[in-house]
Amino acid sequence: MKINKFVMPELIIGSDSIERVGESCARLGARKVFITTDPGVLALNWFEQVLDSCKSAGLPYVIFSDITTNPKDDEVDRGVQIYLEEECDAIVGVGGGSPIDVAKAIAIVATNGGSIHDYEGVDKIVFPLPPQVMVATTAGSGSEVSQFSIITDSEKKKKLTIISKSLVPDIAIVDPQTLMTKSPHLTATTGLDVLTHAIESFVSIAATPLTDVQAKSAISLVAQYLRPSVASKMNKEAKEKMAMASVQAGLAFSNAILGAVHAMSHAIGGRFLLPHGDVNAILLPYVMEFNYLACPEKFYQIAELFGEDGRHSGKKAIEYVKQLSLDIGAPQRLSDMGLQNSDAAIIGQVAIEDACMITNPRDITAADVERLFKLAL
Amino acid sequence: MKINKFVMPELIIGSDSIERVGESCARLGARKVFITTDPGVLALNWFEQVLDSCKSAGLPYVIFSDITTNPKDDEVDRGVQIYLEEECDAIVGVGGGSPIDVAKAIAIVATNGGSIHDYEGVDKIVFPLPPQVMVATTAGSGSEVSQFSIITDSEKKKKLTIISKSLVPDIAIVDPQTLMTKSPHLTATTGLDVLTHAIESFVSIAATPLTDVQAKSAISLVAQYLRPSVASKMNKEAKEKMAMASVQAGLAFSNAILGAVHAMSHAIGGRFLLPHGDVNAILLPYVMEFNYLACPEKFYQIAELFGEDGRHSGKKAIEYVKQLSLDIGAPQRLSDMGLQNSDAAIIGQVAIEDACMITNPRDITAADVERLFKLAL
Repeated sequence: MKINKFVMPELIIGSDSIERVGESCARLGARKVFITTDPGVLALNWFEQVLDSCKSAGLPYVIFSDITTNPKDDEVDRGVQIYLEEECDAIVGVGGGSPIDVAKAIAIVATNGGSIHDYEGVDKIVFPLPPQVMVATTAGSGSEVSQFSIITDSEKKKKLTIISKSLVPDIAIVDPQTLMTKSPHLTATTGLDVLTHAIESFVSIAATPLTDVQAKSAISLVAQYLRPSVASKMNKEAKEKMAMASVQAGLAFSNAILGAVHAMSHAIGGRFLLPHGDVNAILLPYVMEFNYLACPEKFYQIAELFGEDGRHSGKKAIEYVKQLSLDIGAPQRLSDMGLQNSDAAIIGQVAIEDACMITNPRDITAADVERLFKLAL
Repeated sequence: MKINKFVMPELIIGSDSIERVGESCARLGARKVFITTDPGVLALNWFEQVLDSCKSAGLPYVIFSDITTNPKDDEVDRGVQIYLEEECDAIVGVGGGSPIDVAKAIAIVATNGGSIHDYEGVDKIVFPLPPQVMVATTAGSGSEVSQFSIITDSEKKKKLTIISKSLVPDIAIVDPQTLMTKSPHLTATTGLDVLTHAIESFVSIAATPLTDVQAKSAISLVAQYLRPSVASKMNKEAKEKMAMASVQAGLAFSNAILGAVHAMSHAIGGRFLLPHGDVNAILLPYVMEFNYLACPEKFYQIAELFGEDGRHSGKKAIEYVKQLSLDIGAPQRLSDMGLQNSDAAIIGQVAIEDACMITNPRDITAADVERLFKLAL
């Protein structure tokens, strides 16, 4: 029996759970909290509740919101400088993947020194990180539970994938009410990101029974609740179920890693600074077609979770994903995002080196990536 | 949406994972390790691998094996004395529930002072505990992943239920090879303990979607693999699946708590020092009959996991458990263990006060407990 490893943060999921940020930090011994977020989140009504909870817990805080989509190394550097100047000793990320990934990156550099580039790859972090409390507000990235941080190298125009158990936050807080402020487009694309996490980790060569239960539950929840969640900001049940799906998919991929969709979308996102969820949404069915050969039985199980019948229905899983994507108005073609045939070669080269490619179930070459890229144009 | 909380240790499950005890302790900063185990485990061949792993990691260790079934407060006191005298700074429990529960109890008293009685109940631990690495070797207790420690008050002849997030070990190691040295009787009763954990946490009023996926997976694995595991010490696949079932059931009950079976079996075990797995095995079907009224839909789901058909098959879940218990030769009656009608009253009184009773799905009185006790005699 091969070794199954599994690691996750303490989870607090539910209505008004964002009011627990302050007490969570205090419980971990924090004295002064560094809060990362993005300008969009900062402007939302409920963000005040996060700050109030810190005040109630007697914790001073600093807010750092100078963070973009596909967050960059220089944003991390600025954050580290402020974190150290302000003598913070705990870190809170509030938002989608970007503020949380930046929070983790700041935690690394503030305590381990050097530059964030030094930590690319697996297990490069030496010294313990400060307490980390992450508040996920998109039902997408899964970063609040994962051992990943993805930061863009702004010079080389590529994403640095940083993987370490130290990056699993101490506490992850997920409050479905924060999902009620998302646009239908963001709900659709982050929802398909959840599905991508679940499917890629389910077919990953590093999948275990422990990750499979999480991935399967997430796939089933997305099939039932993503459409209604896109349809209505006020559908509370759908938001709650998508929040749970995001956490479960995050637990699955944190421990089983991902595959070619993410390897390609890191390459594309790093180079062209396109939204991660949009790129994943476009690539997923093409990569599924490619990977089918490696694990038809797993595709059959996915189809079953989608409610498809029949012993040989594995390919129906792919048709289902295509239809879901159309139904919720997700982007369909990379060319609509400005990508061209001439971009294929560099994406092939970069994607094949991504840490997520190692666990893709089917052997894949740069030429295969180029072909998939062109199919998705 | 009510708050869903979930907490678990880092997990390492698989063949030869016991060789990772030393490096796990070192990774957590240990300098000198206190190892608790019981005389039975101490005599087994594979125990040497645990010690070798500490040597390889350059870690000196002390072994404390003066531990009985239903471990007592005075055993904890002796352990604490040695832990402090030897200036240990990390704790490893190797075995079934007893050595692991004692390891946790020693960790509490060695760092928080006082006596273990002071920590009965929920969240009474104030100061951080030393690093804890737990090695589960019975596919039963689930203590290696749980926030529970159960210690017998030897004077009052009752069990102290101690619940705290601090008791979730840092790292849980589960090596299925250790299950190949268990007797058929121990395999049967600890296996039914796993099933009891899974069923009680699934019907618990504190169950969440996160605990449900774990509980359901455990129920399904027990249904498929407990019989073959009892039938053959050498059936590796069955041992592996039962090891996984035990961990998943442990994750479920650690986070959803338990119910009347455990409340009663703590009362009985504390008073008469009978094996926990045997008592649970006898009580489970009677408590299921009692609880059916509270959640027929959940019983229907359990029946489905057992492979039973039909929309109104909830009660078939109870029949299935009875047949499974007979098939694997588990004890059937409390009277066979020396219990009598006259014991019912005190068990009723004590069980009703147990922390596990709070999450039982059906309201229950001391008189109900007495009646169930007599039915199981």
